[in-house]
Amino acid sequence: MTISPLAPTKFPDLPHVEGVDIAVGESGMRYQGRTDLCLITMPEETSVGGVFTKSLCPSAPVEWCKKVIDSGKARALLCNAGNANAFTGKPGEIVTKESAACIAGELNIAPQDVFLASTGVIGEPFEADEINKNIPELLSNQKNSNSTEWEKAANAIKTTDTFAKGSSYPIEGTEAVVVGIAKGSGMIAPDMATMLAFIFTDLAASPSDLKEVLNKAIEKSFNSITVDSDTSTSDTVLLFATGKSEVHASEHLDAFERAVQKVALDLAHQIVRDGEGATKFVEVSVTGATDDHSARIIAKSIANSPLVKTALAAEDPNWGRIVMAVGKAGEQADRDLLKIWIGDELVAENGQQCHTYQEANAASHLQKDNVLISVDIGVGEGNSKVWTCDLTHQYIEINAGYRS
Amino acid sequence: MTISPLAPTKFPDLPHVEGVDIAVGESGMRYQGRTDLCLITMPEETSVGGVFTKSLCPSAPVEWCKKVIDSGKARALLCNAGNANAFTGKPGEIVTKESAACIAGELNIAPQDVFLASTGVIGEPFEADEINKNIPELLSNQKNSNSTEWEKAANAIKTTDTFAKGSSYPIEGTEAVVVGIAKGSGMIAPDMATMLAFIFTDLAASPSDLKEVLNKAIEKSFNSITVDSDTSTSDTVLLFATGKSEVHASEHLDAFERAVQKVALDLAHQIVRDGEGATKFVEVSVTGATDDHSARIIAKSIANSPLVKTALAAEDPNWGRIVMAVGKAGEQADRDLLKIWIGDELVAENGQQCHTYQEANAASHLQKDNVLISVDIGVGEGNSKVWTCDLTHQYIEINAGYRS
Repeated sequence: MTISPLAPTKFPDLPHVEGVDIAVGESGMRYQGRTDLCLITMPEETSVGGVFTKSLCPSAPVEWCKKVIDSGKARALLCNAGNANAFTGKPGEIVTKESAACIAGELNIAPQDVFLASTGVIGEPFEADEINKNIPELLSNQKNSNSTEWEKAANAIKTTDTFAKGSSYPIEGTEAVVVGIAKGSGMIAPDMATMLAFIFTDLAASPSDLKEVLNKAIEKSFNSITVDSDTSTSDTVLLFATGKSEVHASEHLDAFERAVQKVALDLAHQIVRDGEGATKFVEVSVTGATDDHSARIIAKSIANSPLVKTALAAEDPNWGRIVMAVGKAGEQADRDLLKIWIGDELVAENGQQCHTYQEANAASHLQKDNVLISVDIGVGEGNSKVWTCDLTHQYIEINAGYRS
Repeated sequence: MTISPLAPTKFPDLPHVEGVDIAVGESGMRYQGRTDLCLITMPEETSVGGVFTKSLCPSAPVEWCKKVIDSGKARALLCNAGNANAFTGKPGEIVTKESAACIAGELNIAPQDVFLASTGVIGEPFEADEINKNIPELLSNQKNSNSTEWEKAANAIKTTDTFAKGSSYPIEGTEAVVVGIAKGSGMIAPDMATMLAFIFTDLAASPSDLKEVLNKAIEKSFNSITVDSDTSTSDTVLLFATGKSEVHASEHLDAFERAVQKVALDLAHQIVRDGEGATKFVEVSVTGATDDHSARIIAKSIANSPLVKTALAAEDPNWGRIVMAVGKAGEQADRDLLKIWIGDELVAENGQQCHTYQEANAASHLQKDNVLISVDIGVGEGNSKVWTCDLTHQYIEINAGYRS
């Protein structure tokens, strides 16, 4: 698989998170010659917050996590890539129970402190043992989380991803850090992450702090990206706090929030940069809508439009398609108040093409890897930013070939 | 341009509609060596009903039609292809006024009895004279509507269409007929036709009859198709009744309704068959939803999913993506009550793959040109059918190349 042209030059150098141990392995369930299992263990006193797909047909691991997260405690996270364990009925439920029990037995912890995530093909049955037989070896191979291990973990959870995704940020004024890894490249849409992201900190934080911080961070990161408007059955974002730094979240809440937001946004952008077939990283910025919600609907309408996305792939400043997307959003708008920019170039105002508009300037902006489309609706104060990528032949190639 | 593999073998043999005269011409505005203007005139006493795009940034001709349709009277229809006269501000408005005035002057009728439709690139200015200079010649070339002229008219309104679209149906129990022509292949989504369709009858009907009959017909035809989920700024469906048959709608309302519905559905299906890059004609049938509206949202979610559409292009029975699309629709559903069929093959039930499922059967159904996906939600009595096509390389090719 060719690496996305928008990929970062290398995996970031992620710091150790005190208390977090990592092991990866090869189940051979779907992929050959690559890791597809990642087991992460955490110390007693680890707290957890999570956000899950809004899909009404969620995967078995998502249903498991939703059930066990109420306690706010976590000791282990197991993720497998290749089979999503989604729409697998009762047998799928049994797999989650048996996997959690297996890990819990080995570690002598409660099964409900084990979190599970699966990503890959929907609807394909599998046996718990295909995973469980690997658990003892995984546990014996565990290593302290460090840059190398984080990168291995990020690689083990990939499916159609062309590069491993990681990010970290210090919690300012403390020695504590936030580190995250993520996977996702297709089935990405706003309204929940539609991907997997696991974020860790050595801060001490209550489950309710984690929940609040995570909910805020997600809104402007994972919920603000879209690759193909599709929502996965398996989306999971988990935030774990080991407490090993002995720094308390309550005393550094702003800095903690900022760090989680930075990591979440960075991971979300990396997911867009790995959008299936993407050749452009596109920011759609909508201002002047009636309110933020309305701005978001308009921004999504532009970012999800196949006609806008194919024009971007062609580097064609076909701004008429942006007008179309604003019009179809169904939100309050007025043709004659609308302003549209491609990069810095004002393209349209007063209900028509701007008099100073130079198509060459817009076209030259669209030749860049990072593209900015700005729309001012001119009717209020609502703002929203959404990130997406272009729609290329490669998207069809990947999705007509791979079972995801 | 290659003709869609789903195209009918030939343009249908459409009957004469008493009172309807047709002329086509070449403006040379955008296309060379093909017709791009169609002028249709109708006798006094012609009544009209119409439905227009819900886009909040409609084209100037749509705004014109919405204004003049209140009288319920019509004498002429002018359609040009290549420039949509959308987002063209005040100058675009002036174009519509001047074109209507020009035709009205030549025919000695009121400008508000002239209907206008434009399709093509959005945001490109043009001068009224580029159209108006052709009017006298068009009028002198008018011919009685007959099969040849209908086909010429259907060809003159095409943009990325690969074949001309026409349909007719008798009004049972009478000598009167309904004839329609349409264009559209991209920017097609449910919620208004997102295309142009002009339907004619020699029945005598009041504007309110026309409106009622048209609204009913549209819901289960043009509003039930989707190519790329995008909604055009220019969508227009007009139903004209010349009254020349001296058969009155009030006495044959059921037969009239049926004829308009048949023609509208046939034209809508032809539009899907000409979906940009389409290789499959796909019916998505949803039953057992809480109500019809809910069924429709679920059907659209499936029909608009890029992941479902690329799987169909690959003839891959990847039913997990159908589950995903049901899940993301946000409508009431229960994983364990859901049933999914590909063709006649029951794929999934009881929250998992069906025990009798033979992938070879589903795969063989997907090799056909006409594909059926059925989903029973199992929670109520709501039904909906939506028609769409697959998403192929050719869609990207067309839309990354053409300014629409």
